[in-house]
Amino acid sequence: MQLSARELAAFLQGTVEGDPNVKVSRPSKIEEGGEGTISFLGNMKYEAYAYTTTASVLLVSNDFQPAKPVNPTLIRVPDVYAAVAQLLEQFGQQAPTTATISEAASIHPDANIGEGVSVAAMAVIEEGAQIGNGSIIMGQVYVGKDVKLGENVKLHPGVRILAGCEVGDNCIIHANTVIGSDGFGFAPQEDGSYKKVTHVGNVVIEQNVEIGACTTIDRATMGSTIIREGVKLDNLVQIGHNVEVGAHTVIAAQAGVAGSTKIGKHCRIGGQVGFVGHVQIADGTQIQAQSGVAGSVDEPNQALFGSPAIGYRDYIRSYAVFKQLPELYKKLRRLEKKLEDQ
Amino acid sequence: MQLSARELAAFLQGTVEGDPNVKVSRPSKIEEGGEGTISFLGNMKYEAYAYTTTASVLLVSNDFQPAKPVNPTLIRVPDVYAAVAQLLEQFGQQAPTTATISEAASIHPDANIGEGVSVAAMAVIEEGAQIGNGSIIMGQVYVGKDVKLGENVKLHPGVRILAGCEVGDNCIIHANTVIGSDGFGFAPQEDGSYKKVTHVGNVVIEQNVEIGACTTIDRATMGSTIIREGVKLDNLVQIGHNVEVGAHTVIAAQAGVAGSTKIGKHCRIGGQVGFVGHVQIADGTQIQAQSGVAGSVDEPNQALFGSPAIGYRDYIRSYAVFKQLPELYKKLRRLEKKLEDQ
Amino acid sequence: MQLSARELAAFLQGTVEGDPNVKVSRPSKIEEGGEGTISFLGNMKYEAYAYTTTASVLLVSNDFQPAKPVNPTLIRVPDVYAAVAQLLEQFGQQAPTTATISEAASIHPDANIGEGVSVAAMAVIEEGAQIGNGSIIMGQVYVGKDVKLGENVKLHPGVRILAGCEVGDNCIIHANTVIGSDGFGFAPQEDGSYKKVTHVGNVVIEQNVEIGACTTIDRATMGSTIIREGVKLDNLVQIGHNVEVGAHTVIAAQAGVAGSTKIGKHCRIGGQVGFVGHVQIADGTQIQAQSGVAGSVDEPNQALFGSPAIGYRDYIRSYAVFKQLPELYKKLRRLEKKLEDQ
Repeated sequence: MQLSARELAAFLQGTVEGDPNVKVSRPSKIEEGGEGTISFLGNMKYEAYAYTTTASVLLVSNDFQPAKPVNPTLIRVPDVYAAVAQLLEQFGQQAPTTATISEAASIHPDANIGEGVSVAAMAVIEEGAQIGNGSIIMGQVYVGKDVKLGENVKLHPGVRILAGCEVGDNCIIHANTVIGSDGFGFAPQEDGSYKKVTHVGNVVIEQNVEIGACTTIDRATMGSTIIREGVKLDNLVQIGHNVEVGAHTVIAAQAGVAGSTKIGKHCRIGGQVGFVGHVQIADGTQIQAQSGVAGSVDEPNQALFGSPAIGYRDYIRSYAVFKQLPELYKKLRRLEKKLEDQ
Repeated sequence: MQLSARELAAFLQGTVEGDPNVKVSRPSKIEEGGEGTISFLGNMKYEAYAYTTTASVLLVSNDFQPAKPVNPTLIRVPDVYAAVAQLLEQFGQQAPTTATISEAASIHPDANIGEGVSVAAMAVIEEGAQIGNGSIIMGQVYVGKDVKLGENVKLHPGVRILAGCEVGDNCIIHANTVIGSDGFGFAPQEDGSYKKVTHVGNVVIEQNVEIGACTTIDRATMGSTIIREGVKLDNLVQIGHNVEVGAHTVIAAQAGVAGSTKIGKHCRIGGQVGFVGHVQIADGTQIQAQSGVAGSVDEPNQALFGSPAIGYRDYIRSYAVFKQLPELYKKLRRLEKKLEDQ
Repeated sequence: MQLSARELAAFLQGTVEGDPNVKVSRPSKIEEGGEGTISFLGNMKYEAYAYTTTASVLLVSNDFQPAKPVNPTLIRVPDVYAAVAQLLEQFGQQAPTTATISEAASIHPDANIGEGVSVAAMAVIEEGAQIGNGSIIMGQVYVGKDVKLGENVKLHPGVRILAGCEVGDNCIIHANTVIGSDGFGFAPQEDGSYKKVTHVGNVVIEQNVEIGACTTIDRATMGSTIIREGVKLDNLVQIGHNVEVGAHTVIAAQAGVAGSTKIGKHCRIGGQVGFVGHVQIADGTQIQAQSGVAGSVDEPNQALFGSPAIGYRDYIRSYAVFKQLPELYKKLRRLEKKLEDQ
């Protein structure tokens, strides 16, 4: 797709300064640039690059006043970041592929495939599975027995949706993620061995959820492990059996939530955070990366840090002293000495 | 499967109070209930739900004395939790599927497939692989060259058992787990680059082991990485080359064990714990979640916490003071001041 | 492959003591040994095993002076470890398999497959993909649209290389790893929900890189996420969008790097380390396992530890006092008391 500066300005509702006929085919970072690309200056920290970039078109703010000559054609807009998001969406749009069911997929005759669904090579769709209209099942995906997928779901290569699990409309699940593995439940026996607890529940993922690559969500012992509407999970996240993650909560990579914990809405969980099982986390809680949450959080909108996690500011203050502990220890010894000498 | 309260009571060796003909088809949590379900009251913390649940049958203890009227038919048993485990196993039983070898699987003619084995679509079984009687190879599984699987092994979709590895009887391995990737071994070269150390060993998994989803176990440099009988590993666990995990040890999600470390029997390892390489961990050791084990543990049955890990109680006591460090620091400054003023 | 002690000594440029005709077929660890194996004594800590090992041949240093009789034939070499590395390479060599394209693979007619390439069963190669000469695509691998693979690349079962990504010559990628999943980028909306930021960039992996199993590398928002020449990533590592990892840097298992962070050359990153986004890490930095790097590291060749990470020695010293905090607290209370009493 090639677009002229004039066409782009019209699309972004901006104004052109320079040659309106120059054409670009993809976005670039301002420090990389390149002919035929459109770049942007969103943060004045990067202003120096505006005077050296080799991009053909540069998106700037309406109030940008160049201190030196700039080479690219400028497009001025009121909000650079909003325009960039629009641009990325535009360039990221793929040509609408015709929905096709690959002959190299294995689809059970009693699966229920909606209209406009694509199923790619080496995918397996089991008996009783339902796939909503417009969904895209990429290569080597597994859709288990009686799974229900909503409309416009996109499953990237190697995703496994195991028997009986449900995925809502417009969900995106990235490659090699596993939905519906058995929970980690074992009954200790008298001889020191463990007996598997059968898991008869499932996983329910509501609509507009996005889940990263190589993430694992365990099915409930009974009932459902639930991922509410609009939740975003990053890569390599672990969600235990019977967990519930509240609407529009965001969990960064490599975080883990142990069984039966219930996380509220609009929480923001950092990378590599761990939660013990059977606790409740209030809405709007923010947890700093690598923290370990060992108890319930009752009051909403708190920020936590540390392992075990305490108030964010408290941790920062204590850690500031921690760094001085050797010095503090020496001071204490000096005081002891002084007092003994008295 | 539909069962009447009478049939269930006979199965669980309990006694019925109420309509013995009411039928249920699945278990439910007491707070969710639902017609046609059987729920249970195992912990009196949940007693209030006994008077409001919409389950059709409620499993209670022999000595439960309702304070208010209860709607569901009751089944009284001596041990509610044991009865629930029995129930879950019963309801979780799948109709015995006929063992079938999918035509959409790729099986080398020199693989050795036992009796009653299922191999599902898109699975790949390489030359010289042996699969014991009654094993289930689900969709898209990879069984490498000369791999040996015991009897009644279940490999969930996307599991990779790489060349030469061995898996004992009754093991269950969950989706997308990798057994036998190369260990992380590289010889530093004079120019600052690294040369790969060839890994000629394998992974040996003994019987009755269960391994979660997206877990990785590296093959030994030479000899074997060994997972002993009855071990349970959760999701996203990393086991390095030449590690040995002792019998009936349990390791929670996202924990990692570096190369050549030997963990004893009956240990309990929390989530996100890390072990350095080349250490020995005594039998019965318990490690708190997120701890980092930096040395050998010689005495059995200890509990550890922290990074680097120290005694559990020691860590808790030190952390209690850590939280007061800013206050402690102020006190120290006050004392210094006081002494100067004298 | 069977080799006599004489042949091995010639290959390793060593000298034989004992029966030069004894034959071995594989290497073994000295404590395991076994007839028909060659073992080695590289570290005198293991000397006792030299007198009890059942290996047929034992590799020892030129200056090894046995204190007791040894059974195996000895091969003396100047550098035992270098000889072992040579041996492993020798024994690990697989018979050169004929390059074959499986009929059970799905290869788009417009993919460009080089000479001597193997593509195994259930692999999917999409339109426009280019695969360099001598590359090995194992079972169930996914090679997306317009992906470029260099020469002699090896992709283990279940690897996913997503659309537009590039992998350089001689790279090895282990099973179930995902290259090119979307970055974790969402624009917060006024109603508290999140809008996906389209990711139009890719991942570029330079030559001689090795990547472990179940690792995830996200594509750039725009431009490229870059893994430079000779980098080694272990299993379950997370690399965020627009990250750059410098040449010959080594990252251990379960570490994670958040978006847009730039790690220098020749760094050594421990297991379960986390990096925040948008920071710069100088060349030669060493990070202790489980540390959390919360800011840029400007000076090269530093060692860091802790969360947030500080100087390695500083952390060790502070942690030594941390362990004594309860005692320190008591001392402080005693001093306060003493002063009050004066």
